[in-house]
Amino acid sequence: MFQSFQVTARPEQGPPRLAALRSVLDAQGLDGFLVPRADAHQGEYVSARDERLAWLTGFTGSAGFCAVLREVAGVFIDGRYRTQVKAQVADVYTPVPWPETGLADWLIEQMPSGGVIGFDPWLHTAGQIEQLTDALTGAGIALQACDNMVDAIWTDQPGPAMEPAKVHPLEFAGESHEAKRARLSTELAQNGQAAAIITLPDSLCWLLNIRGADIPRNPIAQGLAVLHADARVDLFMDAAKLDALGAHLGPDITPHAPDSFLPHIAGLRGPVRMEKSTVPAIVADTVGPNGVWGDDPCALPKACKNPAEIDGSANAHLRDGAAVVELLAWLDAQAPGTVSETEVVTQLEASRRRDNALQDISFETIAGTGPNGAIMHYRVTEETDSTLQDGQLIVLDSGGQYLDGTTDITRTIAIGTPQPEAQAAFTRVLAGMIAMSRLRWPVGLAGRDIEAIGRAPLWYAHQDFDHGLGHGVGAYLSVHEGPQRLSKISHVPLQPGMILSNEPGYYREGAFGIRIENLLVVEPATPPAGGDTHRAMLCWRTLTYAPIDRRLIVPSLLDTPSRDWLNAYHSDVLEKIGPRVSADARVWLKDATAPI
Amino acid sequence: MFQSFQVTARPEQGPPRLAALRSVLDAQGLDGFLVPRADAHQGEYVSARDERLAWLTGFTGSAGFCAVLREVAGVFIDGRYRTQVKAQVADVYTPVPWPETGLADWLIEQMPSGGVIGFDPWLHTAGQIEQLTDALTGAGIALQACDNMVDAIWTDQPGPAMEPAKVHPLEFAGESHEAKRARLSTELAQNGQAAAIITLPDSLCWLLNIRGADIPRNPIAQGLAVLHADARVDLFMDAAKLDALGAHLGPDITPHAPDSFLPHIAGLRGPVRMEKSTVPAIVADTVGPNGVWGDDPCALPKACKNPAEIDGSANAHLRDGAAVVELLAWLDAQAPGTVSETEVVTQLEASRRRDNALQDISFETIAGTGPNGAIMHYRVTEETDSTLQDGQLIVLDSGGQYLDGTTDITRTIAIGTPQPEAQAAFTRVLAGMIAMSRLRWPVGLAGRDIEAIGRAPLWYAHQDFDHGLGHGVGAYLSVHEGPQRLSKISHVPLQPGMILSNEPGYYREGAFGIRIENLLVVEPATPPAGGDTHRAMLCWRTLTYAPIDRRLIVPSLLDTPSRDWLNAYHSDVLEKIGPRVSADARVWLKDATAPI
Repeated sequence: MFQSFQVTARPEQGPPRLAALRSVLDAQGLDGFLVPRADAHQGEYVSARDERLAWLTGFTGSAGFCAVLREVAGVFIDGRYRTQVKAQVADVYTPVPWPETGLADWLIEQMPSGGVIGFDPWLHTAGQIEQLTDALTGAGIALQACDNMVDAIWTDQPGPAMEPAKVHPLEFAGESHEAKRARLSTELAQNGQAAAIITLPDSLCWLLNIRGADIPRNPIAQGLAVLHADARVDLFMDAAKLDALGAHLGPDITPHAPDSFLPHIAGLRGPVRMEKSTVPAIVADTVGPNGVWGDDPCALPKACKNPAEIDGSANAHLRDGAAVVELLAWLDAQAPGTVSETEVVTQLEASRRRDNALQDISFETIAGTGPNGAIMHYRVTEETDSTLQDGQLIVLDSGGQYLDGTTDITRTIAIGTPQPEAQAAFTRVLAGMIAMSRLRWPVGLAGRDIEAIGRAPLWYAHQDFDHGLGHGVGAYLSVHEGPQRLSKISHVPLQPGMILSNEPGYYREGAFGIRIENLLVVEPATPPAGGDTHRAMLCWRTLTYAPIDRRLIVPSLLDTPSRDWLNAYHSDVLEKIGPRVSADARVWLKDATAPI
Repeated sequence: MFQSFQVTARPEQGPPRLAALRSVLDAQGLDGFLVPRADAHQGEYVSARDERLAWLTGFTGSAGFCAVLREVAGVFIDGRYRTQVKAQVADVYTPVPWPETGLADWLIEQMPSGGVIGFDPWLHTAGQIEQLTDALTGAGIALQACDNMVDAIWTDQPGPAMEPAKVHPLEFAGESHEAKRARLSTELAQNGQAAAIITLPDSLCWLLNIRGADIPRNPIAQGLAVLHADARVDLFMDAAKLDALGAHLGPDITPHAPDSFLPHIAGLRGPVRMEKSTVPAIVADTVGPNGVWGDDPCALPKACKNPAEIDGSANAHLRDGAAVVELLAWLDAQAPGTVSETEVVTQLEASRRRDNALQDISFETIAGTGPNGAIMHYRVTEETDSTLQDGQLIVLDSGGQYLDGTTDITRTIAIGTPQPEAQAAFTRVLAGMIAMSRLRWPVGLAGRDIEAIGRAPLWYAHQDFDHGLGHGVGAYLSVHEGPQRLSKISHVPLQPGMILSNEPGYYREGAFGIRIENLLVVEPATPPAGGDTHRAMLCWRTLTYAPIDRRLIVPSLLDTPSRDWLNAYHSDVLEKIGPRVSADARVWLKDATAPI
């Protein structure tokens, strides 16, 4: 169950598999086939059965896709994976920089006029297919839904994920599924909608207060559902997965076999709400003219955590913070040049597992020392494993899945004596992280409207970083959750109960990386003396408690309110986490949280 | 030519005029008529002929409209004008809070089913009419274009503005109209568009390098035009207005009588580009199916000033800054309780007129002392004129139109000894103003993405203000210019050459107001030592030079970089403005710009 550091890609398997797929192409009279990373549920992780892209090409990144044509097979990868893809795929595959090169443009260039490219309509969303169809219109290239050609040649393909679903207790969920269904169905009825299709597994699990283990790192049970405007739910999930739920679902939730889903939705009366950006193309086609586009009805209610979820998350963070503090204390006791990245990762996971509350880590730990820290989504393997050297920084980004909450924390630690340049950059990153943590803002603003606050200290030095400031986080669900974000692509107003990460960073290629991340929850702000009492404003409550490396801070680069915030935060860390750690770690923590 | 403080509204004229209008309604068999503030050019100021709303109702605000029905006449006004409207209109008019109450909802409530409401299709945009039509659909209320009923009863209505157009010299324009037309027509051709309709007078004046005096405060000549994809322009403007232009227009610009505009555009071959949010409904209807929606082709090029326009604006600001400094020095020499708001306004305008370069003030000066300063768009009249008292702040927001540029500056000045609470708020406003002035940001961001930087110091204290942080400003054109803005409604990426105001404020109703405003121009940023040389970033260059009242600053509330910025700014003010003012003012300025 511990994170593995094996290099799973075997480039030499690519060519025979590609040849086999091309013979299926020939047999079907098609000119190409699209192999996306996604499964039908469009999540960040997929089950073993759905690892088609990795199986075919060798590429194991978390985003990308392959377009197999008769003469060329393009592997489309974004900036994070330019180096990785070269090591993982054989030269029968052509890496294509994406999104700089769009799929449609590439297909138009590579395919003959009159060509037809196949796709599995379960694995592409209605929005993706619509967009691609539009872009290919007039170029003489047609899209055609077909059976999955990878499945046709993958003789030892694993079966569908069949882990049992479990009840998510009301103590942690905070609201019964009866109440959730009543609330959401009222909204459907108010919009004149007869039903909504739910294909995102975290939406489904949230709505029904169930959890599962069908994919790594996310405690979800895969399934499909229809929520009706009378609050009934038709649930399409293998009966064997439902055994452990007992009477939890009750009379208003009707289980069905997964293969009855399409016939069922074909018979629905409209209007049937579907989310264009996530619903599989085949689902939209099957619903047909009865369908209307709209948001997944669970997305926003799920994002706004209730008091039980917030309390649970706060508790999970205290437990997780203790595990992180044990690791940091241990790490500080190791001499530079004696520990490797994989040892740090293993030690951290062991620390999290120690009290048996950890259900899983919430994503593969990122532990990058020195230049590896500058690779934003670095995942250490046996081949890249590096020793922590004097003068380096190590970026440590990790999290845990607990029954009461999901955590995600990043700390950047000095190994030995840090360089002044790294200290200055660290302090600017910290200044942004604190500026956001302290912020109040008027009700109605979205992440886009306030993200600059967390970046400005870097901007003043003509520095920046190439990822969003923060993402939504679930309550014992996905560590990346929408629609809330601290990012310029986010237009959804922030609302009380939303949990987001606050994680500015700085990355100097070939030299060092820095990232500092706490999770925060949105709360209504109480006006202090002199404040505008008529203004409704929001603020953050910090959930994450673990020390920030004082050796990397240049105090003169922080203004007084920021220093005050840091000292108060460290005082809280000592008070909340101190009683939860070993005597040795407590001694270390006292020092690590001393005022600056 | 000096600003007037007369109270122009005469509420007693409203009832007979309303009765006259209703008799026209009867004669035409309509159930209502809409009277907007706007003219056909949708500008902020209108000519005397177009002051229909004020003539009919008495209301002189710069935004709002009246819906005259048989039994009720609603005057729709926003939050700024709730008090003013009560003083200006007779009780036959019903003030309606807008946009809280939408016009369509109000009409549906007030009108009989089957009712028909008339509108002048020159005075409403295509977008407004489309939106209103959609909103009334299904409610049994119809919109009907008709002749203007106010014009029908306004027997002494002034004629159309007939001020002569003048050449705007290349020295200030920086680009010939030949080059502008070539540039814009290329863009039309690239978009497959045959022509574009231009109805915004600042667009027209910018494109043809002409200026005029058809409306107050904005140096524009009113007219309409068609720009063709071959760079020709058909110009619809009274011939008498063109006399002074001589050969400036040249052979590719063909003048026409204004009343030939509609027949001309009816004969255009498409696609004809029009801006939905600004083009009059009758224009869009006349162009008909040949029309396509798109931005005014002049808007973005006009917003991005060329080096001659930026240099001109910088020069105008030095000249204007000297006039402001003379005023501030004079004001400081007056004892509290001895000067009125109108005296300050008159003194300031006299100071601006002293060197004969001033063409006009760029808007009615806002001079609000004490509680009047908390009224964001306060315009002093004989009735509201107040004496500046010890302990008050006066907000002074003003600007000038010069041949080489348009200025807009706000300073808030302490009268006598300020209150600590006002000093603290002033310092927070200043902190936001400085934070924005110092900012660098990545290329591609819009005003929305960075506006928070100028508000955050207030937000931290649970304070805010209810206007945008900044607006675009023209080059000897409109003092409010789009599409650039520092506002959450702005999605247009900021580009080099754009001039914007940076004007955070704070308003405590019944007590005091604060606003500090400089104009800034966007420039490419050069990375300092240690900066990310691969990142393209933008920054500001300040155009406005005048001291910021040091007596209102609490130095401990400013961080070190902000104090450094202020001291450097004040040093620049002394260096640039000192040589331009009288000996007495120079002595005052030296003190006013001393380091804090």
